[in-house]
Amino acid sequence: MAGREAIIIDWGTTNFRAYRFDSAGEPVAEHRAAAGILSVADGAFEAVLDRQIGAWITSDSELLFSGMITSRNGWVETPYAETPASLEALAAASVHRRHASGATMRFLPGVAMRHPVPDVMRGEEIQVFGACVPEEESIVVLPGTHSKWVRHHTGRIEAFHTFMTGEIYAALKGHTILGRLLPEGATGAPGAFAEGVRHMRSHAGAGLLHAAFSARSRVLFDELAPADIGEYLSGIVIGAEMAGGLALGWNPASLRLVGEPPLTARYAEAARIFGLASQIAPADTTIRGFRRLAALKEPDA
Amino acid sequence: MAGREAIIIDWGTTNFRAYRFDSAGEPVAEHRAAAGILSVADGAFEAVLDRQIGAWITSDSELLFSGMITSRNGWVETPYAETPASLEALAAASVHRRHASGATMRFLPGVAMRHPVPDVMRGEEIQVFGACVPEEESIVVLPGTHSKWVRHHTGRIEAFHTFMTGEIYAALKGHTILGRLLPEGATGAPGAFAEGVRHMRSHAGAGLLHAAFSARSRVLFDELAPADIGEYLSGIVIGAEMAGGLALGWNPASLRLVGEPPLTARYAEAARIFGLASQIAPADTTIRGFRRLAALKEPDA
Repeated sequence: MAGREAIIIDWGTTNFRAYRFDSAGEPVAEHRAAAGILSVADGAFEAVLDRQIGAWITSDSELLFSGMITSRNGWVETPYAETPASLEALAAASVHRRHASGATMRFLPGVAMRHPVPDVMRGEEIQVFGACVPEEESIVVLPGTHSKWVRHHTGRIEAFHTFMTGEIYAALKGHTILGRLLPEGATGAPGAFAEGVRHMRSHAGAGLLHAAFSARSRVLFDELAPADIGEYLSGIVIGAEMAGGLALGWNPASLRLVGEPPLTARYAEAARIFGLASQIAPADTTIRGFRRLAALKEPDA
Repeated sequence: MAGREAIIIDWGTTNFRAYRFDSAGEPVAEHRAAAGILSVADGAFEAVLDRQIGAWITSDSELLFSGMITSRNGWVETPYAETPASLEALAAASVHRRHASGATMRFLPGVAMRHPVPDVMRGEEIQVFGACVPEEESIVVLPGTHSKWVRHHTGRIEAFHTFMTGEIYAALKGHTILGRLLPEGATGAPGAFAEGVRHMRSHAGAGLLHAAFSARSRVLFDELAPADIGEYLSGIVIGAEMAGGLALGWNPASLRLVGEPPLTARYAEAARIFGLASQIAPADTTIRGFRRLAALKEPDA
């Protein structure tokens, strides 16, 4: 990023995050807003960008975009780089546009896997490259609405699988009998999460459809307090993801967890219950990924 | 049921079903209404009963109730008979009340299993006894909002497990991105259901959280039409139940399916894809169960 002022923009479905670097490539500012692409009316992405970080942009800036902003519902749809996908492949498949100020804008591609199961991601790939040492084989888990399990090896994303953990948790809590049993405003005892994970580990074969019902039957038998249903169910669902991720056959020695602290701590605890080590990636993982990408592109900058 | 006019009432959360028998024990009338216990205001169960089938009730009638009407949210809460539970145990644990007309009312208990996983049912137990030959070992599957897998042996319900299949299917379709991709009013090609079941069978280890996302990724790659998402997802979810039911370790040679025809046909197809034979129980299975129960009680009638 040396020579030009870079701005990296991680623009997802619900959040907008931007990071500004000086011409020496040092981070100098960060901006976050609840201005995800779903909140942008009539395709007015450039206006929203200017409102959020217009003060940072000059004709000499270089803007790098990743996340759902590059999807069909975003600003500029980019293709997918197919697995195995290197950072070089991402750079090569990015789509260029010019900002009204004259600044350069690069929209990164997503990553697609076709076999054995088709899968896609947009945005997480930069975090994976930020979290991994190029030479090492790593299993990266990115918890969220649509959690990703990613296998990184020799500088490439070799395979990945999505688990709808966050979204299905919300649907179970908000739209089934399980949520209706939970008293409004209840926070739940911390141990209930681990109890849910342990239940899922012990009964993984019967699967989530069966384990979820234990949140009801255990309340009926006074084995679980209604106030603890939310925590217990979080343990069931994250436990189901752990069981599913381990069934992929990647045999990880350790999981590298990338995400926001309260959620990654839950995943670390669930991994421990499943007998697995984990490390939580540093908070600047996204920035590290972008910097590795920018470092690549210097020769033709 | 000989000697008195029996009326059996299967009163669940959303439906009310009643069957009338003459004094010789022959069925003479049937009544169904969308008058489940959730629709009954202020505990006015007797008024609703009278409105639905009051014309059948005389001081000499014997009314037998099962289903959620016997739960805490119903009319008369009955205890649970614990597994292994025989028909005799159900009869012994029933709770008696008198109708305003003078008719006898008997509320049947539900069945509970405490180990290895606590589980409960109310209403399905009568169908199980209606579907099974006492001497035989059978695995009975009762599809629905909360599907049950039940092991019946030597006249007793030995174990059972609930799968939240119907409810989680509705939550996925109604409250996740998967349903939002489905065009309104789309019916879907019949083959999409089988495709979903096959996908789940091939990727059972990774579980439902992962398989559900294939409804999205396959649409992105034009492997699945948006109109087929509902059918495909039905296959994924019922396939997840099959995989989970088979993981219980009961090794069934065949499944006995009890329920409404469109749903039991889906389960029969899913069982076939999982390499399992099945038989659909006759439509009068509930009546058969109640008649076996009534036959038991004749000595003290």
